[in-house]
Amino acid sequence: MNSFGTLFRVTLWGESHGAQVGVTIDGVTAGLPLAVEDFEADLARRRSGARGTTPRVERDLPQIVAGLYQGHTTGAPLTLVFENGNTRSGDYDNLRTQPRPSHADRTGAVKFDGWNDPRGGGHFSGRLTLALVAAGVVAKKMLRGVAFTTRITALGGQSDPAAFDAAIDAAIRSEDSIGGVIECRASGIAAGWGEPFFDSVESTVAHLLFSVPAVKGVEFGDGFAAAALRGSRHNDPIIDAEGHTATNHAGGVDGGITNGNELIVRAAVKPTASIGREQQTFDFAAGKVAPLRIRGRHDACIALRAAVVIEAAVAIALTDLQLRDRCRHAAK
Amino acid sequence: MNSFGTLFRVTLWGESHGAQVGVTIDGVTAGLPLAVEDFEADLARRRSGARGTTPRVERDLPQIVAGLYQGHTTGAPLTLVFENGNTRSGDYDNLRTQPRPSHADRTGAVKFDGWNDPRGGGHFSGRLTLALVAAGVVAKKMLRGVAFTTRITALGGQSDPAAFDAAIDAAIRSEDSIGGVIECRASGIAAGWGEPFFDSVESTVAHLLFSVPAVKGVEFGDGFAAAALRGSRHNDPIIDAEGHTATNHAGGVDGGITNGNELIVRAAVKPTASIGREQQTFDFAAGKVAPLRIRGRHDACIALRAAVVIEAAVAIALTDLQLRDRCRHAAK
Amino acid sequence: MNSFGTLFRVTLWGESHGAQVGVTIDGVTAGLPLAVEDFEADLARRRSGARGTTPRVERDLPQIVAGLYQGHTTGAPLTLVFENGNTRSGDYDNLRTQPRPSHADRTGAVKFDGWNDPRGGGHFSGRLTLALVAAGVVAKKMLRGVAFTTRITALGGQSDPAAFDAAIDAAIRSEDSIGGVIECRASGIAAGWGEPFFDSVESTVAHLLFSVPAVKGVEFGDGFAAAALRGSRHNDPIIDAEGHTATNHAGGVDGGITNGNELIVRAAVKPTASIGREQQTFDFAAGKVAPLRIRGRHDACIALRAAVVIEAAVAIALTDLQLRDRCRHAAK
Amino acid sequence: MNSFGTLFRVTLWGESHGAQVGVTIDGVTAGLPLAVEDFEADLARRRSGARGTTPRVERDLPQIVAGLYQGHTTGAPLTLVFENGNTRSGDYDNLRTQPRPSHADRTGAVKFDGWNDPRGGGHFSGRLTLALVAAGVVAKKMLRGVAFTTRITALGGQSDPAAFDAAIDAAIRSEDSIGGVIECRASGIAAGWGEPFFDSVESTVAHLLFSVPAVKGVEFGDGFAAAALRGSRHNDPIIDAEGHTATNHAGGVDGGITNGNELIVRAAVKPTASIGREQQTFDFAAGKVAPLRIRGRHDACIALRAAVVIEAAVAIALTDLQLRDRCRHAAK
Repeated sequence: MNSFGTLFRVTLWGESHGAQVGVTIDGVTAGLPLAVEDFEADLARRRSGARGTTPRVERDLPQIVAGLYQGHTTGAPLTLVFENGNTRSGDYDNLRTQPRPSHADRTGAVKFDGWNDPRGGGHFSGRLTLALVAAGVVAKKMLRGVAFTTRITALGGQSDPAAFDAAIDAAIRSEDSIGGVIECRASGIAAGWGEPFFDSVESTVAHLLFSVPAVKGVEFGDGFAAAALRGSRHNDPIIDAEGHTATNHAGGVDGGITNGNELIVRAAVKPTASIGREQQTFDFAAGKVAPLRIRGRHDACIALRAAVVIEAAVAIALTDLQLRDRCRHAAK
Repeated sequence: MNSFGTLFRVTLWGESHGAQVGVTIDGVTAGLPLAVEDFEADLARRRSGARGTTPRVERDLPQIVAGLYQGHTTGAPLTLVFENGNTRSGDYDNLRTQPRPSHADRTGAVKFDGWNDPRGGGHFSGRLTLALVAAGVVAKKMLRGVAFTTRITALGGQSDPAAFDAAIDAAIRSEDSIGGVIECRASGIAAGWGEPFFDSVESTVAHLLFSVPAVKGVEFGDGFAAAALRGSRHNDPIIDAEGHTATNHAGGVDGGITNGNELIVRAAVKPTASIGREQQTFDFAAGKVAPLRIRGRHDACIALRAAVVIEAAVAIALTDLQLRDRCRHAAK
Repeated sequence: MNSFGTLFRVTLWGESHGAQVGVTIDGVTAGLPLAVEDFEADLARRRSGARGTTPRVERDLPQIVAGLYQGHTTGAPLTLVFENGNTRSGDYDNLRTQPRPSHADRTGAVKFDGWNDPRGGGHFSGRLTLALVAAGVVAKKMLRGVAFTTRITALGGQSDPAAFDAAIDAAIRSEDSIGGVIECRASGIAAGWGEPFFDSVESTVAHLLFSVPAVKGVEFGDGFAAAALRGSRHNDPIIDAEGHTATNHAGGVDGGITNGNELIVRAAVKPTASIGREQQTFDFAAGKVAPLRIRGRHDACIALRAAVVIEAAVAIALTDLQLRDRCRHAAK
Repeated sequence: MNSFGTLFRVTLWGESHGAQVGVTIDGVTAGLPLAVEDFEADLARRRSGARGTTPRVERDLPQIVAGLYQGHTTGAPLTLVFENGNTRSGDYDNLRTQPRPSHADRTGAVKFDGWNDPRGGGHFSGRLTLALVAAGVVAKKMLRGVAFTTRITALGGQSDPAAFDAAIDAAIRSEDSIGGVIECRASGIAAGWGEPFFDSVESTVAHLLFSVPAVKGVEFGDGFAAAALRGSRHNDPIIDAEGHTATNHAGGVDGGITNGNELIVRAAVKPTASIGREQQTFDFAAGKVAPLRIRGRHDACIALRAAVVIEAAVAIALTDLQLRDRCRHAAK
C-alpha cells in the first residue's frame, strides 16, 4: 500500500517518467513554518552529481500545493509535488521482453498483469524516494530536539572511508556497481516511544527502511553482531536515574521501546542492479537466455545518495512513534 | 499497537503472569478444518526442555473459544486462548527498584507511567510469542503449497552446528547466555506478492519479525553481505519464462515483490538478557549502581526456542500478502 | 472487520452459542482504576427482564483477563471476556434450510460459504453487543467530564412515553415486535474533536452505530428534519467567545468538528426480526415458500435494551476522537 | 484523517482557494481503460449553473498525474488533480473575527489552533467533493454490473418534484436556502458484501456519506420509518433460492451483509449555511453579537449538486466492500 503511519501518515504516488512524483502528509502539526527552501539541503544530499552517481540532473524542489497558508502549515493534509522533467520517452518495450535482472521489471509486470508503467522502473523507481526525503524534512521539523547523524560505514566491502573513492573508481572502470552500509544515529529521543506488541520501534523503523528500494538488511545497535555475543557482554547496565546506560549495544531500544539513549540503526544497500557491462538473462520474446546491455548511465553506487533517504525514513517512523507516545500521556 | 495485518489480522493480548495469553485472528478463510491438535507440533518446537532452555514447563495447548464450529473455521474471528498456569506470584517490586539491564522493565514503566504489570516482564514477556506461534499455525494452513524450512545458522558466534552444544554448555557453566541467527526459507510462493510502496515483502515480514522480543537484525537473501558485492556478482539472471533465476542473492524478492524463487530471511537474536551471573546496574531505591542477581532459571539461549516463532512471523506476514495479491487479481 | 478505532481500538469476537464473547481494547490509558463492578450498571441496562424483552437471563459480568494489575489498567491491551452460559445446543439446521427473514441467517451463510455458525445467529447475534457495552464503560472512564443522557424518543410509532407500555403490550399480544428511536446526548465535549475529511465526528460515530444490529438510520441534530428547514432557521448563531450557539440544530458538530455544544445523535432501531407469529418465507430444502414459526422467546422490542448499546457506541467513537484531537495539540 | 478504505483506498487533499484539490486512489485494478473524458458526465452533474446553484463556474476536468500508462490504469496509485482557478484572493480575515454560523470557520480554527486556511472554508470547503466525485467515477468502473439511480426525494420540505422549482425560487427571493433528501439505489450487487462486525455495509457507506459536508442523516431501506413498523410488516420474506425478497424494507442489507436486493440509502442534506440575508452572530473582535452579511453568491440549495457526490460516496464504499468480499472467496 502507498501509505504509512498512524498519526503522521505519508502517502506516495508517481512514476519515474510520469508527470510527477508526489506525497501528501496527514497529521502535520498546524503552525509549523515551512518554505520550499527548507527542502533544499536534504534534496541536495540526495541529488546526483558526485562521482559514482548518475549524471541525470535533478534540480528538484517541491511545489507545496496543499496544507500551507501564509508560510505555515494549516493542519490539513500537506501535499508536495515534484514535476518530472528531463525524462526521455524512449522505447521501453525491451524491458518487457528482456527484464533487467534484480529489478522490478519482471515482478512489477506479474503484480499488475502486464499493465505496469515500465518506463525507468515506473512506480518502482528510486525516484519515488524524492517524496520520502521531502516527507523526512517535515518529520524532522516535528521532531524537535532530535538530531540525526547519518554516514556510510561500508562501501564495496571497505569499512575505511579512505578506501571508498578507490572502490567507486574500480566499479566504474569495470562498468559495474557496489553496495554499502548506511548508519543513522538519532539522539535526543525521550524514553518511552514505541508501541507494544507489533509496533515496536524496530518494527516501525524497519518497515519504512525496507520500503526504500535496494535495502536488503536492517539492524539495531549491535544487530547481527549481537548474535555472537554473550549476554554479560551485550547487556547495557543502567547507570543513572534517567535510565541512561553505560554501553549501547541495544541501539537505544529495550523491549521495543526507546530507552533514552541514542537510536542506532544500519541499513544494508545492495549494489545498483543496473550495470553497464553485459549480462546474460532471459529474453521472453526469443524464449531463451540472451545477452543484455542496459543503456543509459546509472549510479555506480546508489548507497551514496541513499543516506539521506535512510535518514528520512527513520525520521518519519520516529515522528509517528513520538505522536503516538505523546497521545498516551496526553490522555491524562 | 497489538494488531497486525490488513486482510489476515492478528490481535494479541496477555501478560506473562496474568490470567491468559490470547490471540484473535480476523480474515481466516471459512471452512478450514482446525483442531487443538493442529497446534501441537509447533508449540512443541517452542517449548522449553532442551539443554539451554528454561525448565519452566509449558504444556500449553490453546482453547479455541470463537470462530470454530463443527471442526471448521466459520470465517468469523478465530480466537485462541492459553491459560497461564505454573506462575509464581512472587515479589516483583525489585524489578521496579532495580530494573534488569536490556529488559523492558524500565522502558515499559516509562511507557506506561509506572502502571505496567512487572511480573515476568508483563505484556513484554516472550510468553506472548505463544500466541504468535498459534497464529502461525493458522497462517500456514492458509498458505497452501508453501513449505517452510527454518534452522539455526549460528549460535554463540559458531556457524558449525557441531559446535552449538559446546557453546551452550559453556554459557550455562558461566551463568551466561548466547544469541544466534535463525534462517527461514519458504518455497512455493508465487511471483507477485508484496504491495508497493510501503508494504513491500521485506517491509511486511520485517515488521512482524522485529516485534518478536530479542530480534535485533533482519536480512533478506544476501542481506548485509550484499553490501560488499559487485552488482555483476549480486544480480540474479533470469533463466526461464517463469522468472526463475540462476542464483538467489535477492532471497526471492525484487523491487519488494516476490519473484517466484525461495524466500530467504534471517533474524539475529540477541543473547538472553536474563543471566544468572551478577551484574552491576542502577538501583533506583538506593539511587546508585548496585549489584543485581536475577533469581530463577532462564533460557541460556532463547534462539533455540525462537526458530518456530520466526517461522510463524514469516508465515503470518506472507498470508496477509498472499490475500492482498489475490484480491488484486480477483478484481478481474 | 472486527476492529474499530485508531488510538482507542476495540476488537470483538464470539458467537451467541459459542464458548464466549470477548473484547480487547488497545489504547486504554495506564493507571485507570477498574473493577468488575464498574460494568454492573451498564450491563444491567442491557439486561433482559423488563416486559418486552427476552426471558433469557444473562447475569453477565466480564472477567478481566489481561491489561489489569492491582486494580488499575496497565496500558497494555485490556481484555474482557463473557462466558456463554444458558445456551441450548439444539438443532439449528432449520436455519440453514429456512433462514429467518431479515436476519443474517442467509447473508451470513453466503458470506462464509455456508461455514458460519448458525446457532442463535452466531457471530451476527445481538449478544456481541455485550462486548460493546463493556468497552463503552471503559470509554466513559476515558472521557472525563463528558456526561451522557440516553433515552427512547419513539417506540412503535409513539413518541409519547406514556404510550410505550401499551405499544409493547399490543405487540406481545399479537406475537409481533416493534422498533424505536434512541437519542443519545453527550455534554461536556470540548470544541475541536473530529478529523477532516473522512473521519468527521458524524462519520466516526455513525460507523460504530451502524455496526449495532438492527440500527437502520442515524441522524445528528435536526437530522432528516433539517432537510425541510430554511438556512435562516437551521443555522446556529454563535453567542459567545467560547463558540456556544443560541440553538443547536447542528447537534454539536459543524464541518465535522465538535463546536462545544451538546452532541445530539439519534439511531433508528428496526422492529425485532424474530417474531412469534407465522411467516411465509423460502424453504431451501423444499424449494418453495413455506410457513415458518420461530421457536423460543424473543425481545418484542429490542430498542429497550439497545439504548445502552447506542450510548456505548457513541462513547467509544468519542474516546477515539478525543485522543486523536489531544494528540494534535500535544504535538506542540 | 484524509484517507478512507481498506483495499480501495482514497486519499484527499486541497483547499477551496489553494493551488489544487487532489485525490490519490490505491487499489485500482490494473488495466482499466481510463481517460479524462470519463469524468465529464459526473462532474457536469456536480457543476453549478442550474437555478439555485452558485454562479461560480467550475469547468473542472482532472489531470491524471500518476497511475495511468497508455490509456490504462497501471495498478500503482492513481492520482487526479484539479487546479483551482477562478478564485479571488480577497480578504478573509473577517471569517476569523466573525465566523459564519453553522460553518467550519470556528471549529476549524479551534481544531488547528488558528492556523487553518480560512479562504472559502479552506480544507472544509465543499470543493473537496470534486475529488470524491472523481474517485466515484473510478469506483463505478470497478463495480461492473452495478447500476446506480440517484434522485432528490425531497427539497425544502416538498416531496413532490413538481414543487421543487417553486421552493427554490422562494428561497432565492428571500435570500435564504433550503435542504433536501437524496436517495441512491444500487442494483446488481451480489449477496455477501459487508464485513462483520464493525465494517457492516451500513457502517462503511454511512462513514463515507457523513464525510460529505452538509449531510446530517443517513438511513437504509425504511430507515427511521422502520422504527414505527411492526416486525411482521417490516420483515422481508425470502421468495427464491437466490435469496431475493418479496419486499425490501431492509434496503438490501441483512445483518450488515448485502442480500442481493437493491441497496437503498438516503442522505439528509441540510440547507446551505451561507445565506444572503443578514444574520446575528458573535463578532470576536467586537466581543459581542453583531449583524453578519455573507458576501458573494452561493448555492440556495446545495442538495441539487450533492446528488452525484452521494452517489460517488456510495460507489466508493461499495467498491471497497466488493474487493474485501472477493478476497474472502478468492482465498479458496
